[in-house]
Amino acid sequence: MSTFQLITQSECARAGAFNTPHGTIQTPVFMPVGTQATVKALSPEEVEATGAQIILGNTYHLYLRPGTEIIGRFGGLHRFMHWEHPILTDSGGFQVFSLAKLRKLTEAGYQFQSHIDGSAHMLSPEKSIEVQIALNSDIIMCLDQCLEHPATREQAIDALELTTRWARRCKTFWETHTERQNSLFGIVQGGMFADLRERSAEAIVAIDFPGYAIGGLSVGEPKELMMEMAAHTLPLLPADRPRYIMGVGTPEDLVELVGLGADMFDCVMPTRNARNGQLFTEQGTINICNARFREDAGPVDPACDCYTCRHYSLAYLRHLYTAREILAYRLNTIHNVHYYVNLVKGMREAILAGRFADYKNAFYAKRGDASPAF
Amino acid sequence: MSTFQLITQSECARAGAFNTPHGTIQTPVFMPVGTQATVKALSPEEVEATGAQIILGNTYHLYLRPGTEIIGRFGGLHRFMHWEHPILTDSGGFQVFSLAKLRKLTEAGYQFQSHIDGSAHMLSPEKSIEVQIALNSDIIMCLDQCLEHPATREQAIDALELTTRWARRCKTFWETHTERQNSLFGIVQGGMFADLRERSAEAIVAIDFPGYAIGGLSVGEPKELMMEMAAHTLPLLPADRPRYIMGVGTPEDLVELVGLGADMFDCVMPTRNARNGQLFTEQGTINICNARFREDAGPVDPACDCYTCRHYSLAYLRHLYTAREILAYRLNTIHNVHYYVNLVKGMREAILAGRFADYKNAFYAKRGDASPAF
Repeated sequence: MSTFQLITQSECARAGAFNTPHGTIQTPVFMPVGTQATVKALSPEEVEATGAQIILGNTYHLYLRPGTEIIGRFGGLHRFMHWEHPILTDSGGFQVFSLAKLRKLTEAGYQFQSHIDGSAHMLSPEKSIEVQIALNSDIIMCLDQCLEHPATREQAIDALELTTRWARRCKTFWETHTERQNSLFGIVQGGMFADLRERSAEAIVAIDFPGYAIGGLSVGEPKELMMEMAAHTLPLLPADRPRYIMGVGTPEDLVELVGLGADMFDCVMPTRNARNGQLFTEQGTINICNARFREDAGPVDPACDCYTCRHYSLAYLRHLYTAREILAYRLNTIHNVHYYVNLVKGMREAILAGRFADYKNAFYAKRGDASPAF
Repeated sequence: MSTFQLITQSECARAGAFNTPHGTIQTPVFMPVGTQATVKALSPEEVEATGAQIILGNTYHLYLRPGTEIIGRFGGLHRFMHWEHPILTDSGGFQVFSLAKLRKLTEAGYQFQSHIDGSAHMLSPEKSIEVQIALNSDIIMCLDQCLEHPATREQAIDALELTTRWARRCKTFWETHTERQNSLFGIVQGGMFADLRERSAEAIVAIDFPGYAIGGLSVGEPKELMMEMAAHTLPLLPADRPRYIMGVGTPEDLVELVGLGADMFDCVMPTRNARNGQLFTEQGTINICNARFREDAGPVDPACDCYTCRHYSLAYLRHLYTAREILAYRLNTIHNVHYYVNLVKGMREAILAGRFADYKNAFYAKRGDASPAF
């Protein structure tokens, strides 16, 4: 069974290590999103070169296309996509909730129609774990019930209670169908209600998982509320297990959340924004279409040593993006993923050196902010 | 001034070497097309890894976007696009002919409107060479007049005569504005009339260029006619200069044309077909969408050692392509460019070993053909 070692703590911020069948992850860690068995626009070697240690795959997408049985024939996602490092998969619940049509939620699970071809499917807690086992994910997530924002207290209670019952079913299936080398993480829900977050955390922790996630954040709520919920929930999770904030967030979010004791993150921002021409730098975000880059022979970020910044100018990147060349999406994505991965890696080093507060101050100072924008 | 060394000849097929400011090209050679300062979907390192020695850039596109003055600020195309090997640029004439709007052809040159923003431009022989000098191309092409197919004998005569007058103007401009380290190639026209090809070749050769191209082939004529024109024209070109067949062609075309004494080729087929899911193999062409590849764990071509074939299965490539993932276009393009470059490289090795006829027979035998399909 995978284990987490908490190496050091600097106030709330933590540095740790988590063992998986495909290697040890140094935390805190950012996980690039590889929805359809590829981190969009990158080769596995390029993902690796950014310093990424683990990527996230989307069970909903992979289950529908190419299908579990095909990936299963390759012994899982690693060999299918040529990525030999750890993989975390989500449960599929969030995409059923956000992408699929005609879904019906029952105690049994989600009934839904594929957004690709309209075919009918049933995603139960057991099915979700079964698919993730076939994908051979190193970290498997429990199926949970996602909530719209805003949700009423009653809706939030129903969702967290169903999530708890499903978490037990997931754990039972995982215990009876695996050797438990791949870790199963429980997910805390509870909407935007601090006491319900507490109730959910207590129930999920009582089931006892190798790791815990906080779900249902960054779903449209104000930033302050997200931070309040995270700040309230993180300390309720056991110190000897990794803590994963799902689907978050901006660079500022990551700095704040590591400061609150979070260990793992995934987000489409670096990859999606890259494809929209938005690039992250230490000084803030730039848009590569901007006319001021037309003749700029300098790199995106002089402080960055990614492949893109080492070899290409802003003028060239602007040209490629304006001309809609495929290479534009790749070069932008390499830079953004490198930025995110190394932002979090830098926090880890600062925590190990007992300088996390300095790191945070320097982060905001470079951006010209005295403190977070929220 | 660049020079060509004819190393050996096997019947008509030739192996040579051509010196340029950015290195020596071993001929026969295939040049991948990098229209807008990028070989579509590939990084320069990936182009290099296919074995490509030289790429082609399109003057029309680069002149319009990002513009000559921007690339000039980088000292030329090589540094702008991070490719340190030789580059050949075309004159821009063919794209004015095929892409631009409201063009008007006069003795002075082409008046046209940009297909991007409708802006008005004039491409004269001098302007074309001036732009190509600013791009710092290793091989610069004369501006010629392209013909529609079919064209009348009168149209073909007018075009070849204008092409000859423009070739003289190009040479004068090149001689007076450069140290002649970058080579200028003349282009033979003449439509589908053997005697006009002869007349054009004689006139262009009389001007004396470091290399010669045959233009106006593969413009919609039957394959037999293209081969007839090439077979008629190639022997009229001086043996001590490289011979470049522009914009051609299929793998079979290349095998036949090398057999007739051609040294250089460019074509969008490997890159464009890759983006359409068509992959070249020793056995012929396959379409990656085909349902028979759904679960196929084998590579595109077991005989191929490109990055794509070494690491990815047909099933994965089919999945990526079906899901319209950006990586699909890249992996397909890597394979196809590798195929083309190494097809021609294999011919060179066979010529050097005096086995070109065997190579040609083996090429057709692997495809299950006794002879070319045309």
